[in-house]
Amino acid sequence: MIYSPEKLAPLRATRLGIDTHHEPTLYLRADSPVCRSEGFESLPRVKATSANRRLIIASLNMITSELLDDDQVGFSESAWQMLQVEENDSIWLSHPRPVHSLSHVRAKVYGHRLDQEQLQAIIDDIVGGYYADVQLAAFITACGDDKLDDEEITSLTRAMVNAGSRIDWELPLVLDKHCVGGLPGNRTTPIVIPILTACGITIPKTSSRAITSPAGTADTMETLTNVSLSLDEMREVVRKVGGCLAWGGSVKLSPADDLLIQVERALDIDSEGQLIASVLSKKIAAGATHVLIDIPVGPTAKVRTLEAANKLARSFKTVAENLGLVISVLYTDGTEPVGRGIGPALEAHDILAVLQNLPGAPADLKERATLIAGAMLEMVQPLEPGEGQKIALSQLESGAAWNKFMAICAAQGGMKIPPIAPYRFALITEQPCTITGIDNRQLAKVAKLAGAPADPAAGVELHVKVGDRVEANTALMTIHAESVGELNYAVDYLNDHPRVIILTDADNGFQDHS
Amino acid sequence: MIYSPEKLAPLRATRLGIDTHHEPTLYLRADSPVCRSEGFESLPRVKATSANRRLIIASLNMITSELLDDDQVGFSESAWQMLQVEENDSIWLSHPRPVHSLSHVRAKVYGHRLDQEQLQAIIDDIVGGYYADVQLAAFITACGDDKLDDEEITSLTRAMVNAGSRIDWELPLVLDKHCVGGLPGNRTTPIVIPILTACGITIPKTSSRAITSPAGTADTMETLTNVSLSLDEMREVVRKVGGCLAWGGSVKLSPADDLLIQVERALDIDSEGQLIASVLSKKIAAGATHVLIDIPVGPTAKVRTLEAANKLARSFKTVAENLGLVISVLYTDGTEPVGRGIGPALEAHDILAVLQNLPGAPADLKERATLIAGAMLEMVQPLEPGEGQKIALSQLESGAAWNKFMAICAAQGGMKIPPIAPYRFALITEQPCTITGIDNRQLAKVAKLAGAPADPAAGVELHVKVGDRVEANTALMTIHAESVGELNYAVDYLNDHPRVIILTDADNGFQDHS
Repeated sequence: MIYSPEKLAPLRATRLGIDTHHEPTLYLRADSPVCRSEGFESLPRVKATSANRRLIIASLNMITSELLDDDQVGFSESAWQMLQVEENDSIWLSHPRPVHSLSHVRAKVYGHRLDQEQLQAIIDDIVGGYYADVQLAAFITACGDDKLDDEEITSLTRAMVNAGSRIDWELPLVLDKHCVGGLPGNRTTPIVIPILTACGITIPKTSSRAITSPAGTADTMETLTNVSLSLDEMREVVRKVGGCLAWGGSVKLSPADDLLIQVERALDIDSEGQLIASVLSKKIAAGATHVLIDIPVGPTAKVRTLEAANKLARSFKTVAENLGLVISVLYTDGTEPVGRGIGPALEAHDILAVLQNLPGAPADLKERATLIAGAMLEMVQPLEPGEGQKIALSQLESGAAWNKFMAICAAQGGMKIPPIAPYRFALITEQPCTITGIDNRQLAKVAKLAGAPADPAAGVELHVKVGDRVEANTALMTIHAESVGELNYAVDYLNDHPRVIILTDADNGFQDHS
Repeated sequence: MIYSPEKLAPLRATRLGIDTHHEPTLYLRADSPVCRSEGFESLPRVKATSANRRLIIASLNMITSELLDDDQVGFSESAWQMLQVEENDSIWLSHPRPVHSLSHVRAKVYGHRLDQEQLQAIIDDIVGGYYADVQLAAFITACGDDKLDDEEITSLTRAMVNAGSRIDWELPLVLDKHCVGGLPGNRTTPIVIPILTACGITIPKTSSRAITSPAGTADTMETLTNVSLSLDEMREVVRKVGGCLAWGGSVKLSPADDLLIQVERALDIDSEGQLIASVLSKKIAAGATHVLIDIPVGPTAKVRTLEAANKLARSFKTVAENLGLVISVLYTDGTEPVGRGIGPALEAHDILAVLQNLPGAPADLKERATLIAGAMLEMVQPLEPGEGQKIALSQLESGAAWNKFMAICAAQGGMKIPPIAPYRFALITEQPCTITGIDNRQLAKVAKLAGAPADPAAGVELHVKVGDRVEANTALMTIHAESVGELNYAVDYLNDHPRVIILTDADNGFQDHS
């Protein structure tokens, strides 16, 4: 009496055209015979097998209307893509096995340490699709704050690497960088990579999309060129021009991380352990051997104090060492946003200005990019401290980096002009004042409400820096949006939060000039 | 430039007949003008307002097919019921306000204490529908284990009471009971209430459905009579016969608890703070003044040690005292299941046997029910210890309790005969042996896999008690299911877990006799 789903009559697949985001969902008539005979009605998740033996675990929604026939199973877009079936293909549904690794998640909630085997079981079940979103949320929350020690973070990182594919670039060393974030506009990678490539270093760079910020490097680069490269395409680009600036998500590096990140985005919960495991698993899977970690430190950055930075740096170093990765940590100024633009296309404009050595290019972005490129050079070449940045500056100012950037974009499929948003709102100060502070978190929120990163042209253009003295009727920032609704929403937030930009003489000076 | 959703052209409501469980979901054409103009595409949640000014916050799924027209908004079943609209009614969609209380959830993750105001903000946003399921999961997990202190539990309980309606029975005292659970088959309430009512105590009892167990009192009572009573109907039943046995969910007591419980079910995470707040908020909202808490203690019950029971009892007492509730805590034996049946209808059969004083009625269920009824009598009447149980026994054995039970069922809409499952599987021991233990958790899992509590006839019938000596070829238990698929699934689990029933002479003696 062994349970065998194939004995049941199959259902006919049909694509409903419902986008349920990343959570695959199947739809079944509540009054269908298979639903009654298998007791699916009360089941939150179901296993679906196709004739070609592919399988997915998906959420199950019951249909109480004529949307489906009795013998049909409806697919959401993500379920359709994951199972790779055609209309009317045969599908067998069955109960998924119990998710034993959830007991390890519970153990973590109760404050127990998890070992390699337990964390691997959790990650394998996550990648297998056995975790519903609420269960992912529980795992993320249970690991929140500093509830994973360095040994657990090492195990988690290893588990995440094991659960995906891993690139072998067949290079003696592969240099990479990561910024822990929290600083709007801090988009140095598209400048750093061409500088290093111009120095003759082969650097296959994969970047991620934004998690909780208004833009990730992949989002910004996508406004400038194609970033969705297969592994073979990346290899070809790197072979041709010595470097690439691609999105890492298209090559299934650390797929567990991709699933966790989707839920982290909704929760906005920072976990030091998850952060380190996310970053290092992606780097190891991407084939990196040497990694520079940039930690911006500032009262409204992700890392707020030097003490917190030291703690994070120590964990990064311990875990990297456990995993055989060479790592260097750089603290940078995190007191205010970098450059002018915040949002994919707005940041792209800043990057182009720096690479092209335009007169008005943001000096702080240039300084940061060369500092980081210099530190990376010093990791792999016998240089005196400071010498790296000088080399980086000369590659940038000579135009060599700009030439490399154009070559990379051309090799990835051609350069594009970043879009410009049709709807705008300028925040004007009524009276002369001095800018005494800018709240990174609130500013990022404004850019996100305006539509960034999903709307590439949306975001915030900042016209002032901390310390600037401005006259009356000066625009402090301009919100860019691709729709009126989003523009209004961002303006409403600004209205409710008068200290996004902190002024000496007036509290924000917010005025509705629209 | 104030944002005003009513300025937009409304969408036409249409009921899609999709049951997304409790999470209300709306569906919108991805290429519709409103979607582009308002930037809804990337929005996980949306606010929907009807012409009669009702509003809900719902998840948003994009439609990429012809399922909807451009000017339509599709409704899931729960969204349709919550907004109470008709086909083609006008609906305005807009961005929901940011959920500020999520910062308090994050604070809890980071180990901070939450005050009354913060917990009230969280609970109000949960009841308002602002929390997605993953955010509810984060809140539950963040409060998991013992991460709420007694003061926080008091605040949470108060917040949950404030967020719902509260029954005033207009009685000098209202006696209630609660069992913290974890003991399959421990269904004493339907016996206790008629005993107390027969003693002349007015007792308006509301019960909940199962959270993580194979049956709740409301699930079991539903196989015997109608339990979905409005408040007025309950009042009428109580006025007529002195007591009721109704489902509490139909009167919106502590609605936050109902939402949290749905997600707790999927997570299976026990939190002491959530448990106490859930129980006491429901009791206070239900108008109770005196509450007996039954804590079964045993190695595989929910509370495993006397130490844990003491800790839980202390918190229960402190929080109850803070909220002006008279409470008494009773520890009971939690080493093995109670009675024979596990699952709504199977437990109902045990209850009927005890109430009718049938010769084969489970003695342990009778002993427990009278112990609890006696302890409750002693809370409100001047009795010597032990005297209460004697009175309870006499009410039961005289048939007075059975008469009261029939009267209550008749008043609630008439008595029903509990259903019997069509599919069964008997676990037989091959050789003589002694039963040395029964795993409550694993046994509950078997009953749930068989379909309990959603399938009322499903569950497990236990034929042995710990200490029993049985001959070869004796049935130890019978699994009952309403479908073949569920029966197989429960049998598979039993096959994989040979120590659900622990024997001296053989390891389970599992044999597939089907």
